[in-house]
Amino acid sequence: MSNQPIQTPGPLDAAATELIQSLATQLRVDSIRCSTQAGSGHPTSSLSAAELMAVLLQRHLRYDWDHPAEATNDHLIFSKGHASPLLYSIYRAVGVVGEDELIHTYRQFGSRLEGHPTPLLPWVDVATGSLGQGLPDAVGVGLAGKYLDKLPFHTWVLCGDSEMAEGSMWEAMDKAAFYKLGNLTAMVDVNRLGQDGPTELQWDLDRYARRVEAFGAQALVIDGHDVKAIDDALTEARSNPAQPTVILAKTIKGKGVPEIENKNGWHGKALPQDMAERAVASLGGPTNVRITTAMPATGTPAITANAHADVVMPRWEKGEKVATRAAFGATVAALAARPEIVVLDGEVGNSTHAAEFKDVAPERYFEMYIAEQQLIAAAVGMSVRGYVAFAASFAAFLISRPFDFIRMAGVSEVDLRLVGTHAGVEIGQDGPSQMALEDIAAMRAIHTSTVLYPADAPATAQLVLGMADTKGITYLRATRGAYPVIYAPEEKFPVGGCKVHHSGPEDVITLIGAGVTLHECLAAASKLSDGGINARVIDLYSIKPVDGETLRQACRATGGRLVVAEDHYPQGGIGAAVLEALAGPDTPELHIKLLAVRGLPGSGTPSELLDAAGISARHITAAARELVKE
Amino acid sequence: MSNQPIQTPGPLDAAATELIQSLATQLRVDSIRCSTQAGSGHPTSSLSAAELMAVLLQRHLRYDWDHPAEATNDHLIFSKGHASPLLYSIYRAVGVVGEDELIHTYRQFGSRLEGHPTPLLPWVDVATGSLGQGLPDAVGVGLAGKYLDKLPFHTWVLCGDSEMAEGSMWEAMDKAAFYKLGNLTAMVDVNRLGQDGPTELQWDLDRYARRVEAFGAQALVIDGHDVKAIDDALTEARSNPAQPTVILAKTIKGKGVPEIENKNGWHGKALPQDMAERAVASLGGPTNVRITTAMPATGTPAITANAHADVVMPRWEKGEKVATRAAFGATVAALAARPEIVVLDGEVGNSTHAAEFKDVAPERYFEMYIAEQQLIAAAVGMSVRGYVAFAASFAAFLISRPFDFIRMAGVSEVDLRLVGTHAGVEIGQDGPSQMALEDIAAMRAIHTSTVLYPADAPATAQLVLGMADTKGITYLRATRGAYPVIYAPEEKFPVGGCKVHHSGPEDVITLIGAGVTLHECLAAASKLSDGGINARVIDLYSIKPVDGETLRQACRATGGRLVVAEDHYPQGGIGAAVLEALAGPDTPELHIKLLAVRGLPGSGTPSELLDAAGISARHITAAARELVKE
Repeated sequence: MSNQPIQTPGPLDAAATELIQSLATQLRVDSIRCSTQAGSGHPTSSLSAAELMAVLLQRHLRYDWDHPAEATNDHLIFSKGHASPLLYSIYRAVGVVGEDELIHTYRQFGSRLEGHPTPLLPWVDVATGSLGQGLPDAVGVGLAGKYLDKLPFHTWVLCGDSEMAEGSMWEAMDKAAFYKLGNLTAMVDVNRLGQDGPTELQWDLDRYARRVEAFGAQALVIDGHDVKAIDDALTEARSNPAQPTVILAKTIKGKGVPEIENKNGWHGKALPQDMAERAVASLGGPTNVRITTAMPATGTPAITANAHADVVMPRWEKGEKVATRAAFGATVAALAARPEIVVLDGEVGNSTHAAEFKDVAPERYFEMYIAEQQLIAAAVGMSVRGYVAFAASFAAFLISRPFDFIRMAGVSEVDLRLVGTHAGVEIGQDGPSQMALEDIAAMRAIHTSTVLYPADAPATAQLVLGMADTKGITYLRATRGAYPVIYAPEEKFPVGGCKVHHSGPEDVITLIGAGVTLHECLAAASKLSDGGINARVIDLYSIKPVDGETLRQACRATGGRLVVAEDHYPQGGIGAAVLEALAGPDTPELHIKLLAVRGLPGSGTPSELLDAAGISARHITAAARELVKE
Repeated sequence: MSNQPIQTPGPLDAAATELIQSLATQLRVDSIRCSTQAGSGHPTSSLSAAELMAVLLQRHLRYDWDHPAEATNDHLIFSKGHASPLLYSIYRAVGVVGEDELIHTYRQFGSRLEGHPTPLLPWVDVATGSLGQGLPDAVGVGLAGKYLDKLPFHTWVLCGDSEMAEGSMWEAMDKAAFYKLGNLTAMVDVNRLGQDGPTELQWDLDRYARRVEAFGAQALVIDGHDVKAIDDALTEARSNPAQPTVILAKTIKGKGVPEIENKNGWHGKALPQDMAERAVASLGGPTNVRITTAMPATGTPAITANAHADVVMPRWEKGEKVATRAAFGATVAALAARPEIVVLDGEVGNSTHAAEFKDVAPERYFEMYIAEQQLIAAAVGMSVRGYVAFAASFAAFLISRPFDFIRMAGVSEVDLRLVGTHAGVEIGQDGPSQMALEDIAAMRAIHTSTVLYPADAPATAQLVLGMADTKGITYLRATRGAYPVIYAPEEKFPVGGCKVHHSGPEDVITLIGAGVTLHECLAAASKLSDGGINARVIDLYSIKPVDGETLRQACRATGGRLVVAEDHYPQGGIGAAVLEALAGPDTPELHIKLLAVRGLPGSGTPSELLDAAGISARHITAAARELVKE
């Protein structure tokens, strides 16, 4: 918690104004220089926001550039990530990036000054460039600041006007207002022109303001090139403790370069060399103005992480019927003993069992209602602040609705824990709209992802425990129905491992399942055994990374005969994970049947649907018999 | 076009009111009966909207139930798809579903009365059940009605209050207002309770109204159980030609069953048998009231499809350098000769080249701005009205941002054409946020999907032409950069086929690529040939369905030696498609190297990034040499 009041900037006198103007000019000059040198980039989208950033940096941002991880630092997020020339020109002006690096490495291979910002740069919280994500992420940072850290840092977000058409921006606005994030200010650079012509609302600032106010934020409409107006707005924004602020700044795209000001056709184009030279010259040429950012207040977060806190794990007896989603709820509630653990719900906490966390740690349980994009973005923002965030919903909605947010979380290389319940046809009566049947394929292809799919309660508990300390994006797929506990409470489930059942020297086939199909595989092995066929069963609870070595061993030991059964579409799922693991310069001999859901399932009981999909014990048994016979 | 004025309903006298009330009561009774019989479902969410639907059906909806495909029919979409008991009770009341089917098959295996509605039922336009999608889809239907059909049908949407937290609802509202869809009315059943406790805004109807008005729609706040108020609002909604209307109806969840009215904990729960019996009895027991829906106006759509129109295809010469995205633009513009073709853009038409369609058919080009969820939903809605809609954007945003909408379009089994440009690391300087590297994995796992990835302009042109007549969801992945034309204009590219290059009896290895990596494979084959190694090259332009037979032949012919190179992450992409196709009871002998993008790429030139990712000709050559040596 902070023990120092927030300082306010001094008077905006003539000298201060002049400094800001020269700073804005330098940001323009550098934005032009670096993009023209690179031969690509978005200078015009940078020029429109130069005053906004110059005033913010010089007078309002509180940031220790030598210690970007300092908890009390303000946050600056470029939701319009394409304005990277402006962001990097700021970094030069505060002294953390050299002129040479800026001008000569921007967008070059190997440079950290990429086309759109990523956290390769220590001052960048989250990767942006997929529009409509920076503000939602900032809501997560703001939630952490207000409810977890309880520190007076402010989160400032530069937004584009085109991205206001993304629904995610309104999810963010809604949640920022609902949670009274007075520590959040969005500056919308309303430069009227998108990539391909005018934006939807162009310069109808009043319309924007009505929307912002209707969603519960304070709207301030200003001339985005008027230093005094910007300064007043930023002051007002920071002094409103109970409400987020949206500064709607009317600006001119390409401002400062008369040849292209407010002209269509100049989005995402570097100025040609001659035009750039003229523009830089008319702006007074390169300068070396330095921004002197205020230091943050001192203070420490109200929460201190404790990865060694005593977590009393839930226990179940073998044979007991427990849904893996229930095991998730019990485990995440136990994990509440660690103060850094946070849970976010998408209005289905009673179904996912995430709500069990709320019973023990309501102050770290965040209801995001039915807004899955914001659900993920909030978790991302909390992860930026070091919290261990679990986001849970039905798998069908948790993965597919915010898939671009998950993709960008991968680009940001933040740590996220996703728990998707009610996966596959196993959900039964609710029908195909509620069945995640593509989530494994989608999640496996995400950078940094881990994909887990436990079959019983102890496995779930161990994996959820492990998720808290796993880097990257960890996705755990959970089942709706209750199935027998098959593992002892002490059993370990390392990421990248698997469990082998019924292994013996007489095995002639390997059955591979995960989650609900592991139970079907075990039942099939039992039937096969009755018929004199010894089947090994692999519980592939870790789908990514996958235990290729054990798969290869089993493959060799059972004559290359494998049956894979999965409650997922046949493309890119567990079958593909097995094949990818086996494939290589010396792929073992392979006689394989891939049982998966084909076509569109309907409603029915779980067992009817598993059987209709061809992934029940009966089908696994038949597939195994055929392979053994051949 | 219509040649008959819209009728208005007669006076709402006492008899009419009484009929509606008895109808509403029957809808309640039947909703309770069918869900209790099924043992699951959402009766309380159905009870709250009984009057809304009774008034709509009896006095406002114009629908020929015997001819659901009639162009002039109104549309009724349950955005809150979980209120399926109410929808199916309506179907019983209009006489298209029998009492026995309703009560005894709801949610049963094999029944068309699924847990959430799908177009298995001829009166259902789109599958719903993933909240926040019905209204966006309806915007597409409304756009078709106003701008394409030019018919006076109205689209009515029943929305839940919880789903108003989804950003997609506001994308829909925004676009409905922007396109002045006076033919669209949303009825929001504000019953205050979500699945797990109160909704965010509960009964703050004024707050909803301010948001709706700020987004440009007419807001009407009413008591959702007051027949007269509903009737007035629906009359006003239909008579506003230039503005969509949102009726904000304050309702009571569970209305009509006092034991559970406005009580938390009753979402998604069937009433137990005894409670259901009491409720039904107190409501007067089962009845057989019939709704007499007005017939639609007569008329025909302003556009008549002509799949045989003369399409003058663009041509390119071999060796010419052309980007496949440019070939898409030229081809879709040529396809404008077919009056049913429509193009939707996400404010990047100048980059995707979709804008070339606008030049020739501006009246069938729809700018959806940066709102990819609504982009897909609008295409879905137009597909419902029989139009052949192409939606285009950057692949990273087109697939991942609206992935849940694509998933649900699969559940709806509508036809969609998606063109995602700027895929992979090949885009170069813009960096990883703009690189689709998971789109193939995600799209392959979608029900009904076809995935295409052409390497040159003629291939693109032929595939785009074919997409217009391909059922299901077709995704074409296009490249940013210009590459040499390698195929003759006459060459055919059937879906499910591939092209084999350099095939000969001395081939010792097969190189498999698609899109940009096909060029790398060809270059590698040339280098290998210089070194005395004969390599066959396969252009796998059709990734799903994939030509398994040709792959198996090549595998056998080249000693099982394969190199697959793809500009995509290694999971679930082209390599997985190849492995899935080869895998079977008799998987051929396989010595394979899967070259794909690993880790997080940065900025750079396309060739630098292809090389850094290990998928350039140099790497393919090296991988091939190693396999041949082993």
